[in-house]
Amino acid sequence: MNKKNRFRDSALRLSGISRLSKHGHRVKPGELPGIEHIAAALTAPEAGSVAISYIDYSASHIETGDITNLDAFLDKPLPSWAAVRWINVSNMHPYVINQFRQHFEFHTLTAEDVLHVTQRPRVENFDDHLFVVLRMLKLVQHDAEGVATDSLLDTEQVSIFLYDKVLITFQEKPGDVWQPIRERLQTEGMRIRKNGPGYLLYAMLDAVVDHCFPVLEHYGDLLEDLEIITLENPSPDVLRRIHCVKRELALLRRIVWPMRELVDHVYREEEGRINESTRPYLRDVYEHTIQIVEIIESYREIASGLTDLYMSAVSNRMNEIMKVLTIMSSVFIPLTFIAGVYGMNFKFMPELSLRWGYPVVWGMFVVLTLGMVLFFKRKGWIDRR
Amino acid sequence: MNKKNRFRDSALRLSGISRLSKHGHRVKPGELPGIEHIAAALTAPEAGSVAISYIDYSASHIETGDITNLDAFLDKPLPSWAAVRWINVSNMHPYVINQFRQHFEFHTLTAEDVLHVTQRPRVENFDDHLFVVLRMLKLVQHDAEGVATDSLLDTEQVSIFLYDKVLITFQEKPGDVWQPIRERLQTEGMRIRKNGPGYLLYAMLDAVVDHCFPVLEHYGDLLEDLEIITLENPSPDVLRRIHCVKRELALLRRIVWPMRELVDHVYREEEGRINESTRPYLRDVYEHTIQIVEIIESYREIASGLTDLYMSAVSNRMNEIMKVLTIMSSVFIPLTFIAGVYGMNFKFMPELSLRWGYPVVWGMFVVLTLGMVLFFKRKGWIDRR
Amino acid sequence: MNKKNRFRDSALRLSGISRLSKHGHRVKPGELPGIEHIAAALTAPEAGSVAISYIDYSASHIETGDITNLDAFLDKPLPSWAAVRWINVSNMHPYVINQFRQHFEFHTLTAEDVLHVTQRPRVENFDDHLFVVLRMLKLVQHDAEGVATDSLLDTEQVSIFLYDKVLITFQEKPGDVWQPIRERLQTEGMRIRKNGPGYLLYAMLDAVVDHCFPVLEHYGDLLEDLEIITLENPSPDVLRRIHCVKRELALLRRIVWPMRELVDHVYREEEGRINESTRPYLRDVYEHTIQIVEIIESYREIASGLTDLYMSAVSNRMNEIMKVLTIMSSVFIPLTFIAGVYGMNFKFMPELSLRWGYPVVWGMFVVLTLGMVLFFKRKGWIDRR
Amino acid sequence: MNKKNRFRDSALRLSGISRLSKHGHRVKPGELPGIEHIAAALTAPEAGSVAISYIDYSASHIETGDITNLDAFLDKPLPSWAAVRWINVSNMHPYVINQFRQHFEFHTLTAEDVLHVTQRPRVENFDDHLFVVLRMLKLVQHDAEGVATDSLLDTEQVSIFLYDKVLITFQEKPGDVWQPIRERLQTEGMRIRKNGPGYLLYAMLDAVVDHCFPVLEHYGDLLEDLEIITLENPSPDVLRRIHCVKRELALLRRIVWPMRELVDHVYREEEGRINESTRPYLRDVYEHTIQIVEIIESYREIASGLTDLYMSAVSNRMNEIMKVLTIMSSVFIPLTFIAGVYGMNFKFMPELSLRWGYPVVWGMFVVLTLGMVLFFKRKGWIDRR
Amino acid sequence: MNKKNRFRDSALRLSGISRLSKHGHRVKPGELPGIEHIAAALTAPEAGSVAISYIDYSASHIETGDITNLDAFLDKPLPSWAAVRWINVSNMHPYVINQFRQHFEFHTLTAEDVLHVTQRPRVENFDDHLFVVLRMLKLVQHDAEGVATDSLLDTEQVSIFLYDKVLITFQEKPGDVWQPIRERLQTEGMRIRKNGPGYLLYAMLDAVVDHCFPVLEHYGDLLEDLEIITLENPSPDVLRRIHCVKRELALLRRIVWPMRELVDHVYREEEGRINESTRPYLRDVYEHTIQIVEIIESYREIASGLTDLYMSAVSNRMNEIMKVLTIMSSVFIPLTFIAGVYGMNFKFMPELSLRWGYPVVWGMFVVLTLGMVLFFKRKGWIDRR
Repeated sequence: MNKKNRFRDSALRLSGISRLSKHGHRVKPGELPGIEHIAAALTAPEAGSVAISYIDYSASHIETGDITNLDAFLDKPLPSWAAVRWINVSNMHPYVINQFRQHFEFHTLTAEDVLHVTQRPRVENFDDHLFVVLRMLKLVQHDAEGVATDSLLDTEQVSIFLYDKVLITFQEKPGDVWQPIRERLQTEGMRIRKNGPGYLLYAMLDAVVDHCFPVLEHYGDLLEDLEIITLENPSPDVLRRIHCVKRELALLRRIVWPMRELVDHVYREEEGRINESTRPYLRDVYEHTIQIVEIIESYREIASGLTDLYMSAVSNRMNEIMKVLTIMSSVFIPLTFIAGVYGMNFKFMPELSLRWGYPVVWGMFVVLTLGMVLFFKRKGWIDRR
Repeated sequence: MNKKNRFRDSALRLSGISRLSKHGHRVKPGELPGIEHIAAALTAPEAGSVAISYIDYSASHIETGDITNLDAFLDKPLPSWAAVRWINVSNMHPYVINQFRQHFEFHTLTAEDVLHVTQRPRVENFDDHLFVVLRMLKLVQHDAEGVATDSLLDTEQVSIFLYDKVLITFQEKPGDVWQPIRERLQTEGMRIRKNGPGYLLYAMLDAVVDHCFPVLEHYGDLLEDLEIITLENPSPDVLRRIHCVKRELALLRRIVWPMRELVDHVYREEEGRINESTRPYLRDVYEHTIQIVEIIESYREIASGLTDLYMSAVSNRMNEIMKVLTIMSSVFIPLTFIAGVYGMNFKFMPELSLRWGYPVVWGMFVVLTLGMVLFFKRKGWIDRR
Repeated sequence: MNKKNRFRDSALRLSGISRLSKHGHRVKPGELPGIEHIAAALTAPEAGSVAISYIDYSASHIETGDITNLDAFLDKPLPSWAAVRWINVSNMHPYVINQFRQHFEFHTLTAEDVLHVTQRPRVENFDDHLFVVLRMLKLVQHDAEGVATDSLLDTEQVSIFLYDKVLITFQEKPGDVWQPIRERLQTEGMRIRKNGPGYLLYAMLDAVVDHCFPVLEHYGDLLEDLEIITLENPSPDVLRRIHCVKRELALLRRIVWPMRELVDHVYREEEGRINESTRPYLRDVYEHTIQIVEIIESYREIASGLTDLYMSAVSNRMNEIMKVLTIMSSVFIPLTFIAGVYGMNFKFMPELSLRWGYPVVWGMFVVLTLGMVLFFKRKGWIDRR
Repeated sequence: MNKKNRFRDSALRLSGISRLSKHGHRVKPGELPGIEHIAAALTAPEAGSVAISYIDYSASHIETGDITNLDAFLDKPLPSWAAVRWINVSNMHPYVINQFRQHFEFHTLTAEDVLHVTQRPRVENFDDHLFVVLRMLKLVQHDAEGVATDSLLDTEQVSIFLYDKVLITFQEKPGDVWQPIRERLQTEGMRIRKNGPGYLLYAMLDAVVDHCFPVLEHYGDLLEDLEIITLENPSPDVLRRIHCVKRELALLRRIVWPMRELVDHVYREEEGRINESTRPYLRDVYEHTIQIVEIIESYREIASGLTDLYMSAVSNRMNEIMKVLTIMSSVFIPLTFIAGVYGMNFKFMPELSLRWGYPVVWGMFVVLTLGMVLFFKRKGWIDRR
Repeated sequence: MNKKNRFRDSALRLSGISRLSKHGHRVKPGELPGIEHIAAALTAPEAGSVAISYIDYSASHIETGDITNLDAFLDKPLPSWAAVRWINVSNMHPYVINQFRQHFEFHTLTAEDVLHVTQRPRVENFDDHLFVVLRMLKLVQHDAEGVATDSLLDTEQVSIFLYDKVLITFQEKPGDVWQPIRERLQTEGMRIRKNGPGYLLYAMLDAVVDHCFPVLEHYGDLLEDLEIITLENPSPDVLRRIHCVKRELALLRRIVWPMRELVDHVYREEEGRINESTRPYLRDVYEHTIQIVEIIESYREIASGLTDLYMSAVSNRMNEIMKVLTIMSSVFIPLTFIAGVYGMNFKFMPELSLRWGYPVVWGMFVVLTLGMVLFFKRKGWIDRR
């Protein structure tokens, strides 16, 4: 049944939240931490399943390419002209992550966090690198059996390692989230080409935060629609949809809150990985995260208010139904009683033999009805139907 | 239909909030930050579309004028007698902002914030200037098809740059928000003439904060009206209006909260741009922002209480309807039954042949009715109709 | 109409809150700050409209008097024997405040705050004096057309300047709020005579805070009354009264919260204006303000609980009404149907000719009625009427 | 009436809270602070009305006794063998408190706080002593007219002065709250005998905190009972009881919260009045207070959930009533209509003369009834009765 | 009765919470603190009732065994090859705890906390050891009389002492919670073998925190189920189950919150008991606790939303019932009235003699019915049944 399917869909979304608990940790409680034992059990992934590409650039030169033999590539030194090297890995694999871990000497638990794609956004400061976990937001359209359902919120984890000259990014899913940045890199004279990997990190943070705005817009539009529906025609489905929006706004907040801290942390980074000239840009991103948090809070309040509005609309509808019932009953019950009286079979009922008995009774019917109608008009129950 | 229009209007207000998300960021996620690339694509605006005026003043002299050739004006030095120069730009244009940016050497992102008119109120401390973004509140009256609707809250962004001797203001829309300040400047001997640009900044903050009070008054009056209506005659429309007031108070709070921080930040500014003698004035403005925040909180609580009041009024109305139905039914149903009994066609019904049968039945009718009425009086259902 | 009047009265109270916004600022946004320009436009007030009195005292001497010529009085030095001078101004006037401002050299904005009687309680530390704004609470009885209404919360602003040897107080309204202090001053040997103006300030803070307790008691009693009414006989008026109590408790909290900070601030004053021996007394006042805040919070929670209680009482009442209707209908509708059956005019209805047909039908009536009554008894609907 | 009495009782409890405001301050606002003027107006209390006892002890010796002549006792020095002297005063009197104040030189306001028995739990650090105010919790059983009512929460104030070798305790009411401590003191070799007055203070704090647990257990049991009643048989009385539990839990929290701070304050005491070896014990008490606070918070949440449960139970009951009414009406109203049709007296009604007319109508009755029953079964209204 | 049993079961769970108050303290208020007096009253436990085992290990060697003679074992020194000794005690006994206390010289109150198994998770820093109390979560399945009930949350206390080379663990109940750790220890070359007791402590914290995830998953699934049921078929039982989930989530939060602090405290431990190389691992555990806390908060919000959904479902059901009643009554009451009119026995009712009177009345019946149906269709009451 169609209705059931939509519920199931709504349940799916809930798991969208609880998924964080399902894969956010090792498979079995008490299992070994770290990534070596997972990587050791595996061989290199099949060609094509993991895409690794690199961009070496400086203000004047740029070179891009795909990496097929990772070990060979990592062993070669950075070309002398290159100011920044950016390696991007998408659709990752424990074996590949372990290769990077061995070469760039990052911590086995950090490698594990890259693999387990349900981390909270956060930043960690290591001696020779900065580790950043982000969540990129997406809206997934969802048409079930011809019914236009509200779209679903989906998130993708992005892990970033910032070294002195190298920046490595790991994407959860294929698809190019960094396309606009890549295009800017190709254009000579751009600010991004003249700056170090810190500015590249900023550009990524900025892209991730900017991705939140269309999502917010979507929920703003949804709330507007729901408000109009609630006021005009509150079907039982409305509350379910308000409930879903609330739940997804809660999820959104859980993702954006730590992002705010994260950007602030990168902004205040003191090891010199972030240039002084990059800081104002990070501050700008920080302002955006605050703005997003505030908009989410507003939306949550509006959603709460909609629940009240809906409940009151239901009450008003009940009132209307009751009014109709009461008016109908109150008008006709006395009339029926009078008709019943003159349907009695007593031998001695003088009225029955009267010539004008029947018209007089009809007169009473009319008078009583008018009286009741007047009474209900005074109560204001009829005008407002 | 009129009703629909009012809902659409209410939806409009919601977008009034979500607009913050719609234009508060660059058009496409991942787009280039900064203003140069926008300005570069444009030529100077048509004459008249952007109004730029200046006031140079000291305790003894004052000179005002409109600027037509901006570059020429900016290249000329400040007259030696002038203690303060105030340049005001209204209805701004990326090209013009970029001209100012090049001359006054402020950051490209700051220039972008001036252009994107949905920033949160905030202050930023740069080496040689202070950057302040404010939101000026306004109430827009809104008469749709002869129906007096509640007025809408509108906001306008004002950006201020405070340099050692120069203060530049950018207004989002034309119309003179600074008129009272301009008048005071014209009057010799005024405190504002004797003080530097810090005091001018104070005068502007004070004007912006003072503009909040009439808005608050408006919402106070609205709440009073809604309270009276809720208690006297709670139509379904009331909750919608309460909902709107809540939403606008939430927006108001989101605007005033950062204003409080902002004023405190300017008050604590340590680079000497604010004179010691100006500080008590800023403190006064700070007290006003706290007062506004507290009044908003009170109003929010009152609005919440009104929702409860409305819900209870609806319940009471339902009770009243039910009482009428119950009284009518309970009185007439037994009577109708008795009439039905004596309408039966049994051959042997001794009562039917009795001479006084019919009057006795009428007696029963009267007694039963009185009994029910007494019963309901005791229950307190009739007296309180 | 009487009912309307009470609503209007309730609206009045709301303005009691919004009044803070109506007079808490200058008349027109953007108007000139400070008091000189107001005072300059005025001449000295008429004799008698502003009452100014003074008390000079030391441990051994005391001298009191009314001041008519203020300038002359202020020019005379303090008598050598006097340890403390206390000047009290009631029913103030801009001209008089300006006279004090000129003589005691306090800030023009401070003078303005004395005049605009809707400041938040606060304390400000200046180089040579301490400025304290307090709010004194009062309950105003309010009998409208013989209806005993709940009393109204009213507040009065008191401004205090504490100099080395002089303490100046400005009262908003005439009437002697300081009478008990004045009496203690008259008694030789009292602690207040032996201590400086800091102790006098303490005595005033203590008086203001102590004035809160009868107000709290009033609301405690009101809540008790409302609780009994809600449980015994919840009329629609109850929720309005609960709503009013909530609103006034919110106002109360808004006034007492800053008082707590204020007393703490005076307690921690470091410029030596408060003696070491006076500090324990201030700490005592501080404890009282905390106690008041906690009691207000309790009362707010109780008031919230009362709303729930009321709503549930309304629901229970509805249930009761529904039960009566259901019992009446369910008992008589089947009976009426049976009577209807035997009122049909079919030619061949064998029962009609039976001798015992009519009594048997009566038997059915009785059996059916008993059955329904039993059914409702089992449901527990009858016992609990 | 019994019901009224229970309400009155419930009102009594509310005053149990507001009592804090009734006696927590001097009788008249603006009255003289301190205790001397109260004590001066009184003579020594009658013998027997105030019980004062002392215990002098060291690791090896112990001596206990009652004090009749207080001044004489206080003038005698502590015996040289005694490590600690503990004086306990129960049922106190201003005159006696003043005697202690004069001898131990504590502050007049502190003495006043001992007398006014509605202080918040708190600790104050003086130069030569520590002053601690505690509230001991008690449950008072309350049987009104044979109705088992919920017991009442009662509190008693205990004030403690900790000097170098002397510890003085003032109890609000007679009755020995310290009995277990006294017993432990009598046993040689106990840790309490080997330690100083700081450990004695710990033992007292521990006793007071431990007294909270049975009270919490009581409310836990009450909540369990209320939950079962709410689910099984929600009478209107339940919400009143939930309301009372909420109110008392709020009171409980108001008492325990400052206790937590108090214990922490004593734990961090730096003047050496608390031995290093006593600190771990105080930390243990601190852990207990945190546990109590957390349990109270849980209980408050459970009580809130019970209100929801009750409201939903009331709604379900209403639904059930409505179902019965709807089923009865919907089944019989159409039948009655048909009976009415054939009760009409038209001359030409062919059905009336048909031989099988009457049985066919009965057939229709049966079919219609079965149809309605089937309809309601499908709606799920009958199965779930 | 089955239903009652389930309530009793639900009550049991509540005691599951209040149990914390029942055994979280000494049996009688005011009783002696510490463990010696309890241990002194007991002899050594029977063989077999308390299981004590040990593991000595270094990177190269490992030796495990059960301890029968505890005193003898404790007196023997650690073998020189052993880097770490781990002693595990399950099903503890005051006598045994006291033996450990005497040998390892920990505080008597700490020993008491090991025994009283309802402590909050916390960590305490002593001079020569670290004391950690944890709560291990478990779900207990609960099938009462064939009814599948929701499983119960159960917790077990684990106490850990960390010395320089020795780590002692006390389990509340038998059963091996440490099995995965033990297995890892047996495998040579594992990281756990190369590190000190600090890493072993980490492994334990990690195991305890990892145990939370399946519990969270359980509640996530439960909430999904409840959401589907609420939307499809809201029986009165649903709210009870939501209430239970809320209560258990509150309990969960009360347990996990202090765990977060605890892990942070161990992470920041400065006495060198935690290696630098172990810290990143603890940080990882800390991230997990934050994630758990956030998921619990989400679940609590979802549960709150479900209450709203349920309430609205109940209201909608009521609306549906009312609609049926109103439609049935409104259609048939006027018809019955008309039938009643022509059942009257007036002598002069011209219609009765008309040939086409009866068919015309039937026409009226049909027209009226169609009119009402149309009316209700327009109101939207029929289409949406």
